[in-house]
Amino acid sequence: MVDLGERSYPIYIGESLLGQTELLQQHIPGKSALIVSNETVAPLYLEKTRAMLGGLRHEAVILPDGEKYKNLEVLNRIYDSLLRNRFDRNTTVIALGGGVVGDMAGFAAASYQRGVHLIQIPTTLLSQVDSSVGGKTGVNHPLGKNMIGAFYQPRAVIADTDTLDTLPQRELSAGIAEIIKYGLICNADFFSWLEDNMSLLLARDKTALAYAIEVSCRTKAEVVAADERESGKRALLNLGHTFGHAIENGMGYGVWLHGEAVGAGMCMAAIMSNQMGWMSDEETERTIKLVEQAKLPTKAPPSMSAEQFINLMSVDKKVLDGVMRLVLMKGIGNSVVTSDYSPEDLNRALQQSIAA
Amino acid sequence: MVDLGERSYPIYIGESLLGQTELLQQHIPGKSALIVSNETVAPLYLEKTRAMLGGLRHEAVILPDGEKYKNLEVLNRIYDSLLRNRFDRNTTVIALGGGVVGDMAGFAAASYQRGVHLIQIPTTLLSQVDSSVGGKTGVNHPLGKNMIGAFYQPRAVIADTDTLDTLPQRELSAGIAEIIKYGLICNADFFSWLEDNMSLLLARDKTALAYAIEVSCRTKAEVVAADERESGKRALLNLGHTFGHAIENGMGYGVWLHGEAVGAGMCMAAIMSNQMGWMSDEETERTIKLVEQAKLPTKAPPSMSAEQFINLMSVDKKVLDGVMRLVLMKGIGNSVVTSDYSPEDLNRALQQSIAA
Repeated sequence: MVDLGERSYPIYIGESLLGQTELLQQHIPGKSALIVSNETVAPLYLEKTRAMLGGLRHEAVILPDGEKYKNLEVLNRIYDSLLRNRFDRNTTVIALGGGVVGDMAGFAAASYQRGVHLIQIPTTLLSQVDSSVGGKTGVNHPLGKNMIGAFYQPRAVIADTDTLDTLPQRELSAGIAEIIKYGLICNADFFSWLEDNMSLLLARDKTALAYAIEVSCRTKAEVVAADERESGKRALLNLGHTFGHAIENGMGYGVWLHGEAVGAGMCMAAIMSNQMGWMSDEETERTIKLVEQAKLPTKAPPSMSAEQFINLMSVDKKVLDGVMRLVLMKGIGNSVVTSDYSPEDLNRALQQSIAA
Repeated sequence: MVDLGERSYPIYIGESLLGQTELLQQHIPGKSALIVSNETVAPLYLEKTRAMLGGLRHEAVILPDGEKYKNLEVLNRIYDSLLRNRFDRNTTVIALGGGVVGDMAGFAAASYQRGVHLIQIPTTLLSQVDSSVGGKTGVNHPLGKNMIGAFYQPRAVIADTDTLDTLPQRELSAGIAEIIKYGLICNADFFSWLEDNMSLLLARDKTALAYAIEVSCRTKAEVVAADERESGKRALLNLGHTFGHAIENGMGYGVWLHGEAVGAGMCMAAIMSNQMGWMSDEETERTIKLVEQAKLPTKAPPSMSAEQFINLMSVDKKVLDGVMRLVLMKGIGNSVVTSDYSPEDLNRALQQSIAA
């Protein structure tokens, strides 16, 4: 359970969850539901999800697949479907897919008739460990990622690890990036466990995956519960993300996967922390090595310059009244939110972090 | 003050408020602000508002004027401006204009970077008495009014009655419709005061206007505070609105002003209540007479049919799992939310309420 007082909700993690009818239906208070999915996921899991709804009146809207479709125009298709079907404010939106589907369906649920019910069924590792917990929803704008959105909590999250069997290898690694992040933020033991079990995760061992997902969700839930609106502690979840968003934006959304950009971003944060004398050489190397083991990039793309980074980072949401806060590390499992660095610190780290 | 616990905010009502610099600045926590206004209001009050911001970094975005521009496309211009100016999540959006500007600027503030600060400076009577209190924000969709939005509270509301001097007569009357509504909902004494003072309001007497605005805001604030999310008591605020929205939608947004449609809608609710034996002939006549005195329509447009009404009303947000709740009256000052009526009751009221 994610503890947000009245708005707490359960997260189910395990095998064969799609197919347990009561699991879904008990969280639907009204008489109608809209399933939002995409062209890749729908052929695999839409019928199973429909079957779970039994006789409940429901419809589905299938979006194109990809981060580049996470915009206001495609969002409008969800509104269209809700309105054409005359779904009322007691309807439930079910997000069936990865982070993009979850973000868009979540924002549609947050804003349709000023808020209807939401259930997340994440089908990628990234969305199972990360984007279905914490209530962040939204779409991109041509001038910035996730710039339009809302904080909105689901009524339940159903993470069926069977859905990871159909996940491309590259997306599996992208999900592991966020898992590594939780170790780096505040859990050195979990980081060590990941060093020992990375090969099992890459081989999609269900027990290892379920454990890693559970620890990640619990860690995220704790951080979010402590600070639902990201004024303080929650910003730790952005480890690797300010660098990562700049990569995604600079390369064009979708060229690098989000998790790949976060993987490189965490290495960049580690290098900057090391250069500033905050983290030892050994821990910095362990960080880079684990990211590498997960088959993720450890350096920024060579086509990007340090100037481009600084420019793109300054429009990121982590900027408060002109001061850009970064998440840096004082060791593995000990990340901090800080603006205690000089422009030279940042520039030097960028120079070293961009692939030759 | 509207009492919503931690999120309470002050409502300032009176003459010459635009010009009191500290009034605005004390409610701006960050270092930047975006003024959102429209082509009609900006030439009149934009410079005054800018002057109130002193040295604070600010920009303005000027939208086209009219309900038909309250859509996602025009909303996007506000996001564009926020992003082009690199305004961060500590920025303040200032809505300077009527209900449309308030709704759009409010939703932009609710959704930009998942929520920035908001200050409402309503410049029409309708927005001063109604749309700046209660936190409803949003835009229209081709298939329904206010279908996309959020509940989002401003940090302050500044209602300067001087701005009503430039308001067209038709819009003054439209604002009075919402004022009458508060009398009908729960304040029979205020209804009587309105019967005695309607000519002063129409003559824009500042003392009478300030009193009527204050009572309206206080009444709305009480209803909203009792039920912030419209599950129960708040639905009373929809008196005249389910009928009214059908008129606005059926005639095409902007042909009838919102307040004009609400005026006719309240008369329709009165007639239906009377036919059902819930309200006396005398009180029904007083209701219709006061709406007429305010120079508002008392009947639905002759071009609309009862079938069209029923069809349009069924897509309205007041429908819960297929049951359409209406606000009817058991007397002046005693409105109730109910689904305790038959299709025949509704049909008969519609037949009598449509102008010959």
